Amino acid sequence: MTIEKALVVGTGLIGTSAALSLREKGVTVHLTDIDEDAVRVARELGAGREWTGEDVDLAVIAVPPHLVGERLAALQKQGAARAYTDVASVKAGPIADAERLGCDLISYVPGHPLAGRERSGPAAARAGLFAGRPWALCPGNETAAEALRLTRELVSLCGAEAVTVGAAEHDSAVALVSHAPHVAASAVAASLEDGEDVALRLAGQGLRDVTRIAAGNPLLWRKILAGNALPVAAVLDRIAADLAAAASALRAGDLDDVTDLLRRGVDGHGRIPAAPAGRPVAG
Amino acid sequence: MTIEKALVVGTGLIGTSAALSLREKGVTVHLTDIDEDAVRVARELGAGREWTGEDVDLAVIAVPPHLVGERLAALQKQGAARAYTDVASVKAGPIADAERLGCDLISYVPGHPLAGRERSGPAAARAGLFAGRPWALCPGNETAAEALRLTRELVSLCGAEAVTVGAAEHDSAVALVSHAPHVAASAVAASLEDGEDVALRLAGQGLRDVTRIAAGNPLLWRKILAGNALPVAAVLDRIAADLAAAASALRAGDLDDVTDLLRRGVDGHGRIPAAPAGRPVAG
Repeated sequence: MTIEKALVVGTGLIGTSAALSLREKGVTVHLTDIDEDAVRVARELGAGREWTGEDVDLAVIAVPPHLVGERLAALQKQGAARAYTDVASVKAGPIADAERLGCDLISYVPGHPLAGRERSGPAAARAGLFAGRPWALCPGNETAAEALRLTRELVSLCGAEAVTVGAAEHDSAVALVSHAPHVAASAVAASLEDGEDVALRLAGQGLRDVTRIAAGNPLLWRKILAGNALPVAAVLDRIAADLAAAASALRAGDLDDVTDLLRRGVDGHGRIPAAPAGRPVAG
Repeated sequence: MTIEKALVVGTGLIGTSAALSLREKGVTVHLTDIDEDAVRVARELGAGREWTGEDVDLAVIAVPPHLVGERLAALQKQGAARAYTDVASVKAGPIADAERLGCDLISYVPGHPLAGRERSGPAAARAGLFAGRPWALCPGNETAAEALRLTRELVSLCGAEAVTVGAAEHDSAVALVSHAPHVAASAVAASLEDGEDVALRLAGQGLRDVTRIAAGNPLLWRKILAGNALPVAAVLDRIAADLAAAASALRAGDLDDVTDLLRRGVDGHGRIPAAPAGRPVAG
């Protein structure tokens, strides 16, 4: 048995991109969103047809993290799908919500595709968004093998690589590799706000790269950070302490300490896996 | 009168790239470096011939910042060129050295092409390195018009855009748009050093972009930061304070403060000029 019919709940960037990926593989995709315009745009892009309550094999819940639990509860009450997954960028909170709301955890596989763009909404969606990207799956003890199998099939149909990881471990991980770097990029970009015009004329590709993700939607990122506040704060404290120490060392003329930070940066950078081949650099 | 013969002193990445650019335009280029291997590699790349004391129109001093003054003094003593420029990434220090060593400031135009790569050395050089990039020129009150004209011609032959700016203003500017962002990228990358393997498996393009420049040579950057310590420290203090405040706000659940930083980041990012067309994104 395989995914023949899927439901995408929330036709923003991620939901619509998943729908487009599934459509390319011949899956029947139903779409729903509280925003009628978003569904219309997704339909016009060929992402699927409007959902009118049909049963599906897998429901992909692509709504903001704080709404995942209640959408899951509602869909399960309808018996909409045989298995459910979500795409929220944090996992402990949505899982806690699902438990609190009495959701069936057997058919739910918490997920998170590590993909995105600076633009949001269905018009920015594309089928290749997940190609070669990691897609975290956080099954719990209760999760049924069949639900996990269906969700892995979704990941595979989207061209992504499944990475199985515990929910708490996931949230610490994305704090380290995504959420804290986003805030750090924002702080570097914020320092430019009052810079002299001539300074900005001297900007080069290095600055563009460091600050690229700082162009992301502040309200979307507010929600992401709110859902992962403590792990992100822990990483930010370490980065802030390193930068404050570097400033002090520069003032004192103690370049050894600064050089040590630069060396640690080279080592840390070396741990990042190379980009998947053929992926456009700036998504 | 135009540049017919040039001398490149220091055949590293920048010097050799300038030499290759001048060669493409038919300029006769002489090369010298204290490292004989570096000159040999540059020659084999077609960057020019070894210098044996010939007079030239313009000497391009492409040595580390703390050596610019003494090389300028030595070249002027020989009467090697009609005009001299350097490419050091800081300007106040080399100019002070030149004054202290009694250099002729009439024929010297302090310069700084805003271009680079993570790799260093002549083997990483390429003629197109400066295409479309800003190239800061910091002439002083004494600078002769003819020296400035020759240096502007160098910039033009390299395909770069001259930006005239005072030396102190230049150093504050590059602290803001280059040196402090480099240290910030290093601090983000350093935070990955002890991360879990699974966390690094979840890394995406955003993290790659934020940390790309952290791969730069620590000893080269040590010298750059040493030559611009106080302006860099001032910017780093502001970034560190913003990140520490963001961490506190996240712990307190005060998302408004964090959202304000994200918004300031969007505004600051919006001030960066777009990349020149056709330039490869990751140099």
